[in-house]
Amino acid sequence: MARIALHSLAAVALAAQVFSQESPNVGLADQYREKASRLIDAALIDHDGIDKLSYLCDRIGNRLSGSQGLEKAIAWAAAQMKADGLVNVATPLVKVPHWVRGNESASILEPVAHPLTMLGLGGSIATPKKGITAQVLPVSSFEDLDKKGRENVEGKIVLFNVPYEGYGRTVAYRTSGASHAARLGAVAVLVRSVTPISLQSPHTGAMEYNPGSPRIPAAAVTIEDATLMQRLVDAGNTVKVHLEMEAHMLPDADSANVIGEIPGSEKPEEIVVIGGHIDSWDVGAGAQDDGSGIITALEAAHLIVKLGLHPRRTLRVVFWTNEENGGAGGLSYREWVGDQVTNHVAAIEMDGGAEKPTGFGISGRGDTQALVDRLRDVGKLLERIDAGGILAGGGGADIAPLMKDGVPGLAVRTVGTHYFDWHHSPADTADKVKPEDLRANIAAMAVMAFVLADMPDSLRPPAATK
Amino acid sequence: MARIALHSLAAVALAAQVFSQESPNVGLADQYREKASRLIDAALIDHDGIDKLSYLCDRIGNRLSGSQGLEKAIAWAAAQMKADGLVNVATPLVKVPHWVRGNESASILEPVAHPLTMLGLGGSIATPKKGITAQVLPVSSFEDLDKKGRENVEGKIVLFNVPYEGYGRTVAYRTSGASHAARLGAVAVLVRSVTPISLQSPHTGAMEYNPGSPRIPAAAVTIEDATLMQRLVDAGNTVKVHLEMEAHMLPDADSANVIGEIPGSEKPEEIVVIGGHIDSWDVGAGAQDDGSGIITALEAAHLIVKLGLHPRRTLRVVFWTNEENGGAGGLSYREWVGDQVTNHVAAIEMDGGAEKPTGFGISGRGDTQALVDRLRDVGKLLERIDAGGILAGGGGADIAPLMKDGVPGLAVRTVGTHYFDWHHSPADTADKVKPEDLRANIAAMAVMAFVLADMPDSLRPPAATK
Repeated sequence: MARIALHSLAAVALAAQVFSQESPNVGLADQYREKASRLIDAALIDHDGIDKLSYLCDRIGNRLSGSQGLEKAIAWAAAQMKADGLVNVATPLVKVPHWVRGNESASILEPVAHPLTMLGLGGSIATPKKGITAQVLPVSSFEDLDKKGRENVEGKIVLFNVPYEGYGRTVAYRTSGASHAARLGAVAVLVRSVTPISLQSPHTGAMEYNPGSPRIPAAAVTIEDATLMQRLVDAGNTVKVHLEMEAHMLPDADSANVIGEIPGSEKPEEIVVIGGHIDSWDVGAGAQDDGSGIITALEAAHLIVKLGLHPRRTLRVVFWTNEENGGAGGLSYREWVGDQVTNHVAAIEMDGGAEKPTGFGISGRGDTQALVDRLRDVGKLLERIDAGGILAGGGGADIAPLMKDGVPGLAVRTVGTHYFDWHHSPADTADKVKPEDLRANIAAMAVMAFVLADMPDSLRPPAATK
Repeated sequence: MARIALHSLAAVALAAQVFSQESPNVGLADQYREKASRLIDAALIDHDGIDKLSYLCDRIGNRLSGSQGLEKAIAWAAAQMKADGLVNVATPLVKVPHWVRGNESASILEPVAHPLTMLGLGGSIATPKKGITAQVLPVSSFEDLDKKGRENVEGKIVLFNVPYEGYGRTVAYRTSGASHAARLGAVAVLVRSVTPISLQSPHTGAMEYNPGSPRIPAAAVTIEDATLMQRLVDAGNTVKVHLEMEAHMLPDADSANVIGEIPGSEKPEEIVVIGGHIDSWDVGAGAQDDGSGIITALEAAHLIVKLGLHPRRTLRVVFWTNEENGGAGGLSYREWVGDQVTNHVAAIEMDGGAEKPTGFGISGRGDTQALVDRLRDVGKLLERIDAGGILAGGGGADIAPLMKDGVPGLAVRTVGTHYFDWHHSPADTADKVKPEDLRANIAAMAVMAFVLADMPDSLRPPAATK
C-alpha cells in the first residue's frame, strides 16, 4: 500500500473504505497520503528548522531555569511562534526553582595531585567555603555501599563508580546517591557520569535529597576520573580529594511556558498538544536536549501553516519550562488548561533528541494496544522516511500530568545511538543535530500531529473528550 | 598449519624442512611454534603490563619534554627495566626542547559571549600579555585561505575549520597552518582539533613555524567551537575572539632515552630494537600515546626473560624521549649507536596505541615485499590471536633515523578504531587501554621480537650486518 501509484488512489480509497469495515485503521493512510506527502516533501527541504535551532543554541545558548538564557529563549520563542503563523501565542507565568552552580572544583590530593573534571549535580548544596577534604570510598552499587556500612562510609567522600547500564537504570546513582551515602555518614558524593562513553566528559543532571537524610554536596566526575580513583584505591592507595562547590538555591524565579496554536477549523475546542522543553542544563547549548524537540514541534506546525493545511482540531505547540530540575512547566500547563484537559485528545512530547527517527511510542490509560493499532495506519505514511514504527510506550515528563487525566501520550522514537553521549554535558551543541535527521523528525512530527488533529474520529474515545 | 595437533609436530617439522627448500619461510613458524605458544599463553594472563601502564599513567601522569613528569617516568622506567630482568640499563642524556604551555584561554566576544574550549599547540609562541582580540576568518583549506588573500586575512584570526579526513591528511593544518596564515597577515590561528569525533575535546600536538613567515600564536579548538564560529559567520555575523596564551620555549632541557637489554646468547653484537616513546603531550596521561607502546615492549621482553628464553641476538628495549615535539630521542639514539647501526637487524616501534592488534607492517630499504614474504611465516604464529597480518609499511618517528641507514623498520598494526579520538587530548587516559588488548599486543610483540632476535638467518641481509 505504501508504494501505490497516485493515479489509482481513488480506486484504492474506495477499496479501503470497504476493507476498513474489517480493519478500521486502513482508512487513515489513504485519506492522508497526499497531505502527508506534501508535508514530508516540505520537511525534507526545510532550512528554517535548522536555522532556528542554530539561533537558539548559538546565539542564546544554554537556559537553566532562572537564567537569563531561559528568559531570552522564552521571548525569542514567543516571537518565533508568531512569525511562524501560530496564533493565541501566550507565555503564562510559571514559578521555577532557581539553582545556581557557582564556582566549583575538585582535585585529588593524594596519592597524586590531579585535578578532577567535574560538574556539580543540579540541586546540590555547596561545600563549606574552605571545601571538603576527605578520603574517597569507591562503591559499585547501592548494595555495595550498604555492605560497606557506616564504619567504612562515615567521614568519606563516596564515589559511585557504577558502569553505565542504560540511562534509566544507572541514573538512580545520580538522583539519589547523595542521600543513600549521607545516611551512612558520607560527607559528599562523586558520581561517575551517566553516559556510555567519555572523552573526559562530565555530565550533570538533577539530584534530589531524601528528607530523611543529611544534605551533602554531590558532583559528577568523568568516567576517566572515576576509574582513575578506583584504580588508585584498588592498587592499595588512600585517595584523598578536595571538593569546593558554591552551588545554591535562590528564591523561585519567574519563567513561562510558551504556547501557540493553529486553531481547529471544525472542532477548535479539541486539542492536540505537541512540544518539548525549552529549558536545558547550564552547560553546552541544550541542542539535542531539548532544543531539537521544541524546534521539531514548532517547525512541524510552521510547515502545516505554510502548506495552508487547516486541521479540524486545534494543534497547540507548547514549549514547557523547567523540565530538567523541577517539572514546574508540565504541572503548570496542566493547571492552566483546567477542565479543558478533557478536550486534549493527544499529546506528543519530543525529548529524546533528533537522531534519525524510527516512529512513535504511545501510551494511554487502559488499552494502549488499541491506540497502537489505531496509529499503525498513520505509521504507514512515514514508511517513506523509515519512521513508521508505532510501539507501545510513549509520553514524557511534561505531558505526564495530562496523561494522568487520560490524555494519550506519544513520544518520538529515534535510533537513540548517541543521545546519552551528549546529554547534560558541554558537548550537547548544535553540531550534534544532523540537518537531515532534524528534517526527518520534522516530517514525522508534522504528519503525526496533522493526522491526529484532523482525523475524523479523535484518538481519544469520544466519551472522554466532552 | 596453525591448528595442527601437538603429537604430529615432529613429523611436520621434518616435512617443513623439505618444503622449505621451495618456500624458505615455512620453517620459522614450525621452529618457533612451541616458544611462541608459551609466550602467547603467558601474555594472555599477564597482569604486570597493565599494572605498569596504570602506574605510569595514574601515578606519574603526562610527561612532556622538559617536565618533571618525564623525569620521573625516565627514572621509574630504568628501575622497572632492571626489576624486569633487563641488563645494561642505561639512560644516555638527550637534550630536548622545553616548551611550556602556561595559562591560556580564548573566548568569543561577539556576537555572543562564549568561552572556547582550547589547547595551545605545542611550539606556539605566546600572545602579548593583554591577549589578541580580532575578527575570526574561517577557512576550509589552504586553497580557500589563499583564495581569500591578504586583503581578507590581514589582521584576522584565521580559523582552520577543516573536517577530519584521516590524521595524515588533516594534521597539516595543525603543523603548518600558522605560518600559512601569517604569510597573509593573520595575527593568530585557531585550528579545529584533528580528530574524527568530539565531546568538546581539544587535541593539542606539534606545530612548526616556517622560517620565512612571521610567528603568530596557534591553538586548537574543539569541533564544537570551530563549527559554532563557522555557523555564526555563515549566518552573517562578525565573530570576534579574544585569545590569551603564555606559551613559550625555555632553554633545552636534559632528558634521556631509557635502554635495557636481553643480551644475545650467540650473536650479542646483532641487535633487535623494540620500543616506543616515553614522552607525551602535557594533557591526559599519554596512555595510548605512547604509554601503551613502551609498556608493550617492556612487558614483551619481561615475558621472554621470565620464560627463560635466550634469543641468539641481543633484544634491546628502548624508550625514546621527545618524540612528540622534536624527535631528539630518535636522533640521539642513532648517534649513540654510531657505526653499530649496521648491527641493527630490525627495529619495531609501537606508537599507534594498543587497540586490538592485527599484525605488523614492515618497511626496508629496497625490497620491502621480500621482507613481508619473509615475515609472513612469523605472522602464522600470531593467527591464534588474530594478529597474523604482515603488510608493507612499517617504521615510526623514532626509528626513522635507523631506517635511513638500512635497518628494516616494523610497526605494530591494530584495528585503529578509536586511537585518534583520544590522541593528544585530556581523554588519553589509562581506562582507554583495554587489558585484553594490551595483553594481545604484548603477545604479538613478544613473539615477533623473539623470533627476529633468534631466527637462524637475520632479517637484514648478512652483508649489511657486518
